[in-house]
Amino acid sequence: MLTYALDQRGDLSLYEYLYRCIRDDILGGKIAEGEKMPSKRAFAKNLGVSTITVESAYAQLTAEGYLRAVPRSGYYAASIGSAGPVMRDPGAGEGTVPGTGQERRGESAGRTAQTAAAAAAAAPPAIDLASGRPGPELFPFALWARLMREVLSLRQEELMAGMPGIGALPLREALARYLLEYQGMRTDPDQIVIGAGTEYLYGMLILLLGQERLYALEDPGYRKISMVYGSHGIKTAYIPVREDGVDIGALRLSGADILHISPSHQFPTGVTTPIGRRRELLAWAQEKEERYIIEDDYDGEFRLSGRPIPSLWSIDRADRVIYMNTFTKSLASTIRISYMVLPAPLAARLRENLWFYACTVSAFEQYTLAAFIERGYFDKHINRMRNEYRQRRDVLLEALRRELPRNKVRVHNENAGLHFLLEVETQMSEEEMTRRAAAEGVRILGLSAYLHGYGAEPGSRVMVVNYSGLGDAQCREAAKALRRAWMPGE
Amino acid sequence: MLTYALDQRGDLSLYEYLYRCIRDDILGGKIAEGEKMPSKRAFAKNLGVSTITVESAYAQLTAEGYLRAVPRSGYYAASIGSAGPVMRDPGAGEGTVPGTGQERRGESAGRTAQTAAAAAAAAPPAIDLASGRPGPELFPFALWARLMREVLSLRQEELMAGMPGIGALPLREALARYLLEYQGMRTDPDQIVIGAGTEYLYGMLILLLGQERLYALEDPGYRKISMVYGSHGIKTAYIPVREDGVDIGALRLSGADILHISPSHQFPTGVTTPIGRRRELLAWAQEKEERYIIEDDYDGEFRLSGRPIPSLWSIDRADRVIYMNTFTKSLASTIRISYMVLPAPLAARLRENLWFYACTVSAFEQYTLAAFIERGYFDKHINRMRNEYRQRRDVLLEALRRELPRNKVRVHNENAGLHFLLEVETQMSEEEMTRRAAAEGVRILGLSAYLHGYGAEPGSRVMVVNYSGLGDAQCREAAKALRRAWMPGE
Repeated sequence: MLTYALDQRGDLSLYEYLYRCIRDDILGGKIAEGEKMPSKRAFAKNLGVSTITVESAYAQLTAEGYLRAVPRSGYYAASIGSAGPVMRDPGAGEGTVPGTGQERRGESAGRTAQTAAAAAAAAPPAIDLASGRPGPELFPFALWARLMREVLSLRQEELMAGMPGIGALPLREALARYLLEYQGMRTDPDQIVIGAGTEYLYGMLILLLGQERLYALEDPGYRKISMVYGSHGIKTAYIPVREDGVDIGALRLSGADILHISPSHQFPTGVTTPIGRRRELLAWAQEKEERYIIEDDYDGEFRLSGRPIPSLWSIDRADRVIYMNTFTKSLASTIRISYMVLPAPLAARLRENLWFYACTVSAFEQYTLAAFIERGYFDKHINRMRNEYRQRRDVLLEALRRELPRNKVRVHNENAGLHFLLEVETQMSEEEMTRRAAAEGVRILGLSAYLHGYGAEPGSRVMVVNYSGLGDAQCREAAKALRRAWMPGE
Repeated sequence: MLTYALDQRGDLSLYEYLYRCIRDDILGGKIAEGEKMPSKRAFAKNLGVSTITVESAYAQLTAEGYLRAVPRSGYYAASIGSAGPVMRDPGAGEGTVPGTGQERRGESAGRTAQTAAAAAAAAPPAIDLASGRPGPELFPFALWARLMREVLSLRQEELMAGMPGIGALPLREALARYLLEYQGMRTDPDQIVIGAGTEYLYGMLILLLGQERLYALEDPGYRKISMVYGSHGIKTAYIPVREDGVDIGALRLSGADILHISPSHQFPTGVTTPIGRRRELLAWAQEKEERYIIEDDYDGEFRLSGRPIPSLWSIDRADRVIYMNTFTKSLASTIRISYMVLPAPLAARLRENLWFYACTVSAFEQYTLAAFIERGYFDKHINRMRNEYRQRRDVLLEALRRELPRNKVRVHNENAGLHFLLEVETQMSEEEMTRRAAAEGVRILGLSAYLHGYGAEPGSRVMVVNYSGLGDAQCREAAKALRRAWMPGE
């Protein structure tokens, strides 16, 4: 079997080093086109590393087009053509894997796409369509600083007085009022749990709902969710996402009792689950004791046209839905405040079994955020961001229409959230499209990069476009680069 | 078997309700003195609640003197004498259990001790010697607000740029320099992991070191630690703490491979593990692959006289010690910033296996704390607090010496941390001492309340005195109340 001397990796992480070794062997021809790669498990065992390390390396190599994933078969070295190397990482920083928060929520330093050629000859600035970090210029620094100062001078006693494990009451009250007014959700502040990021809350839910249970996740989906469950040693099943939401037949077959979904705006497909399927899902949840749906509304505020979709939580009459949302998209990814709304019986169970966990968010920021919401600033801020993002999206769509031939391109699900799908009629594979875009300075991934299975359905060429961090000039530049990459003859 | 209709508990939590039912039945004579209580497991099964609920209720009742724990036998209804009820909780707030952060680190609203008699007749203000919340008046609000403002106006780009999962580099660098200068610990910023509180870091260590392993904890010890492990379904063993630290024979017999201890200042005994035992512990850790010691230095800054004790981490030559510390004691319990220093190989494993976890602490507070440390304010603040606490301790010790007969009282381990032990020569049991103190308006617990086993060694009368939240007047009042409670004839 293929093997590498991992002790020669110097400062690199195992994942990073393995990724480089395989990439270099493909580029150097030591691994030939079409050659089958070892299975993840066997390779991991052989190298003495964890399966997740090999999986991460394979996922990255697949996303960059070095490997091809074949459903129910495995990974194969892809055709790399004569263009040579494609993406080079600029250093030994933290690795990125498609579909993790580093792309979707922009929570890490990330790594910019750079071609070897470009690096050699004064690279054009890389444009990142694979990462959904909100624009930092939109954060209301002055206002936040003013509110923080106010809190620090006027509420000293409350700030020091200790705090319930589920979070400061003023913030939970502000959220309850906000959820009622803007989402029609009638909650009690005691059902709301504040935590430092959604991953932390996922972990808390695992402790609350049980570590021995089978959790169903969306496929394609947000990879970080599956990694968090994996790190807790949780058994998971992947349920295909169709045009009308998760496949309920597959869900039943899986035997799972807990379903983790994003019905308002699925990532990465952008699918909004219609009301019929929502009712079916609620009915599924009620069929058995202790079945629950985790409704992850990670970018629910960013529906850019039409009315907001009522949450599953708000139409659940049987206490089976846990609603989850975060301020990492709507405020800043480096402010770690998320929350969940539990059905009343689960809130009681949390008080009973996990009451000794202190809240993970600083009281200072909870009080500041409470004031920010209470005084209407949050609503104004969201409106401002929505307008700004709508404008960015329109500039990008307009540029794509101008640059790419209309009969070869279709845009899907552009009205919710901060990404849309771009379907392209081409003979290239998604991997090749990613690779050629990278050679033109644009980082973009296809739907298949977010699949937990072995690859995309044959024939589909659907790319995921995240635009929230782009300026107007970058939008136009991106469209031009994609034309050069994908339509060289046009 | 004893049973209660838990569906009639209204707004109360199961634990709270169960606690009240049993208490009322003891007060009302329905449970007679000396009657044996059902085992925790059987009782939980019978009531349909979790064992931890019964355990929490028993622990609280034992701490308050309603139950007596008998080693290797079980719980018995205690003699409640003719004094009648002892402590009454003022409402249906969050429950408290002895030895949790609510006492030691003051992380929750807590519940003030109040006697029925006192409640009836204009109660004197309750004095809490069972809780170690730092004095809120010591937090440097103005300085913190200034630094926060500066960070928010000058470092906007960095604040928004994303952050490694282990925390913002400036804070990790500041900590590395601080640890070198004040603790002689030579660390690399990449070995430091920032997290929102020590419980969060315990959870992360469980994911890193393995969920299937046996963790050894100190007995008596900080109850919250055992609860956190319990909530993750982790197997634990309890190791007795002797005058020279954990019993190494018992540790070997337990078969545990991970040891969680506080060698600088054990809670609640106050024991400082001497160098000989430290070396033995390190030797134990090196005997086998993947053995680790978690060194929980929760109040290491508060050694009030003598030189600081070198950490276990700093004398470990084999990468087997994980050092952990927190700012909840040294700054404020409602700022959720803790950190751990990993041996380099474990830091690499964290990068490898858990890199997708975003840091749980807000970037704003990390940068503010970095500036606070870098510019020397943290060191000054700690000195100020140390002086303040030393003075509070001296006032309290002086008052105790004045009020209590010298030949009947001895003070132990008063030079480190924010609590000391008070050994009293008396015929009363610790439970009775707690109860009588409560009747005089003072909340105080004996060592046995922190035991994970079934009770204190027979004959010991050692009370744990936390003084960090007390003013001078309260210190004097506490001493007088304890004389009335414990030495009624004197």
